[in-house]
Amino acid sequence: MNDPHQGDGESRPDELADTLRLTMVAGVGPRIRQALLERFGSAQAVLAAAPSEWRDVPGVGTKVADNLAKADQIDVDRELAVCCEHGIEILAESDDAYPRMLREIHDPPGALFMRGTLKPDDALAIGIVGTRHASRYGLQQAQKLAGSLARAGLTVVSGLARGIDAAAHRGALEAGGRTLAVLAGGVLRIYPPEHDALAQEVIAQGALLSESPSSAEPMRGMFPQRNRIISGISLGVIVVEAAQRSGALISARHAMEQGREVFAVPGRIDNRVARGCHQLIRDGAKLVESADDVLEELGPLVEAAPRDDGQVIHHPAELSLNEIEQKVLAVIDTEATSIDRIVTDSGLPVPRVLSTISVLEMRRLVRRLSGNTVIRAS
Amino acid sequence: MNDPHQGDGESRPDELADTLRLTMVAGVGPRIRQALLERFGSAQAVLAAAPSEWRDVPGVGTKVADNLAKADQIDVDRELAVCCEHGIEILAESDDAYPRMLREIHDPPGALFMRGTLKPDDALAIGIVGTRHASRYGLQQAQKLAGSLARAGLTVVSGLARGIDAAAHRGALEAGGRTLAVLAGGVLRIYPPEHDALAQEVIAQGALLSESPSSAEPMRGMFPQRNRIISGISLGVIVVEAAQRSGALISARHAMEQGREVFAVPGRIDNRVARGCHQLIRDGAKLVESADDVLEELGPLVEAAPRDDGQVIHHPAELSLNEIEQKVLAVIDTEATSIDRIVTDSGLPVPRVLSTISVLEMRRLVRRLSGNTVIRAS
Repeated sequence: MNDPHQGDGESRPDELADTLRLTMVAGVGPRIRQALLERFGSAQAVLAAAPSEWRDVPGVGTKVADNLAKADQIDVDRELAVCCEHGIEILAESDDAYPRMLREIHDPPGALFMRGTLKPDDALAIGIVGTRHASRYGLQQAQKLAGSLARAGLTVVSGLARGIDAAAHRGALEAGGRTLAVLAGGVLRIYPPEHDALAQEVIAQGALLSESPSSAEPMRGMFPQRNRIISGISLGVIVVEAAQRSGALISARHAMEQGREVFAVPGRIDNRVARGCHQLIRDGAKLVESADDVLEELGPLVEAAPRDDGQVIHHPAELSLNEIEQKVLAVIDTEATSIDRIVTDSGLPVPRVLSTISVLEMRRLVRRLSGNTVIRAS
Repeated sequence: MNDPHQGDGESRPDELADTLRLTMVAGVGPRIRQALLERFGSAQAVLAAAPSEWRDVPGVGTKVADNLAKADQIDVDRELAVCCEHGIEILAESDDAYPRMLREIHDPPGALFMRGTLKPDDALAIGIVGTRHASRYGLQQAQKLAGSLARAGLTVVSGLARGIDAAAHRGALEAGGRTLAVLAGGVLRIYPPEHDALAQEVIAQGALLSESPSSAEPMRGMFPQRNRIISGISLGVIVVEAAQRSGALISARHAMEQGREVFAVPGRIDNRVARGCHQLIRDGAKLVESADDVLEELGPLVEAAPRDDGQVIHHPAELSLNEIEQKVLAVIDTEATSIDRIVTDSGLPVPRVLSTISVLEMRRLVRRLSGNTVIRAS
């Protein structure tokens, strides 16, 4: 019952308060928090433990133990009141609305503060990140890729920063798509301040998310932690422009460790901020030229995602299908399906069905079992 | 004795005449020629065989057999006279001066017609090729890479075509380096005609090479054959810009099959002629940003190459060493060499020797055996 990974639909108010309290203890970052939870089983049990027990946990020093001892002085009620006042939702890890992919990383946030909404089809999310010092080319490509992917039905996740991040959010917004901004500080502290209007638009077509209390200042050390959430929420991360030895590269390595697909956009070799992307490509990131490259490369979803139009998505590549292709795919089963059956069920002429099956095969969505039968690829 | 791979220093005049005669038979391309030589052992034996024997060789049809039967009508003496008159050298595969790397490909040219000179250090050659429809960026990068590699001591090999090829030759020429142009037609038929002046410069700082008779028109089908010679002479091939499904991509695949390292220069994803390079990178070509990337990636030489300055090069990466690094490397043996010995022989202070050894280790030129001894990497 104390396993924080055990979803029970909605968290008890006390459980949420304990989770928040633990999150708000100074010096308790995602790693120490995760170590404490693994040792004691729940936030409540962590807070109830004796100082000597805390000190047994790797990473917990005198300072953190002292802070844990004073945790009862943290005004969690005030934080809850502020959130209530500003319409900020708090998603505990055990809540159903908590992003499923994020729950599966090694060190998921105990709670997410949210301004805006999360929808079931935000499960189909893609991170787009890069340097704040982007070239015009980088900005163009980030916006264009975000637009195409959003139109295809993916939710674009980024960090609301200057440069590539902002271009990615804008691309998704202009395409009428969904976008999520994960902040390093609190969701009431928009950073940089000139992105206040952009943040409002993100709230309208998605959400601002953060694991920091709502009014927390964004601090230097928080950015790598924030980036693990961007990749954690997403099926993959696209790095558009990044300098060598930059934060974006570190984030990309973390994304790989999380088992996320990493993509990088190449550029001119005389463009300093293309270097990081080229380094990633040398290290195994997928070179990306178009939204289709991304859709084809993302693996099948762990859990099928329902969409607003009633379609159920099993694989991101389904998003790049035209109407005919969708129609044919819809009548192909996870068990052997005969071509005759597909022709009957789809109402399409035989040659059209055959050529469409070839397309679906190329996109690795179906597999031929024999000349007459096909099956959904898994 | 009939093995065409058996070098005997200089070819007998008759042997050369037979080789040329066989090369000049219409319809006998590199593949059929190689099949004939493998069956009969020498050009002389091929020409002396009976028509029924020719027809036994895969790829030889009625037409080619007819042409072989009329081979004695080919005026080889006239070709030899033309070459003599124009100072064209003919290198038979058995000649010592024939490029060693080229001799080792599956289907080496039986003879190379040459205007200019080949030097022993042309063994350190790198191909730089790409589209005739290059962007300004592609031309700049081709010229810059060729210049840097030529300054490092590599000979730049290309095809004298418009676009990337010409930029590569020019880069090497302007750096005062060596460059070879491999032509699809004869070495007296400069194509395109506007590259006549460029061809003269190439002759002065390298050579024009072709397997076609000296006055042969460049024909469409000859370009892929020519490209196998560019990669065959070289340790690796750099593709600077290429459209998808272009000749440059096919050549790059052939280069891989020849065991040559293939490099590709990335570019903007909205640049049509960067697509081919991106495809190559996806397929395993090394992404190249600088001359150093190329020098570090090329494998050790099969046979050490002597240079004009008396230095003997075992590995292309040695070309990017500074004077101190060269000095230290020169006193490290292929057997265990002690640090003390290196200090004594180089006359350099100990800290300098130690830091230099670290650099040489990183470039994979030497290996530490213990704290006190190092050895040349092989």
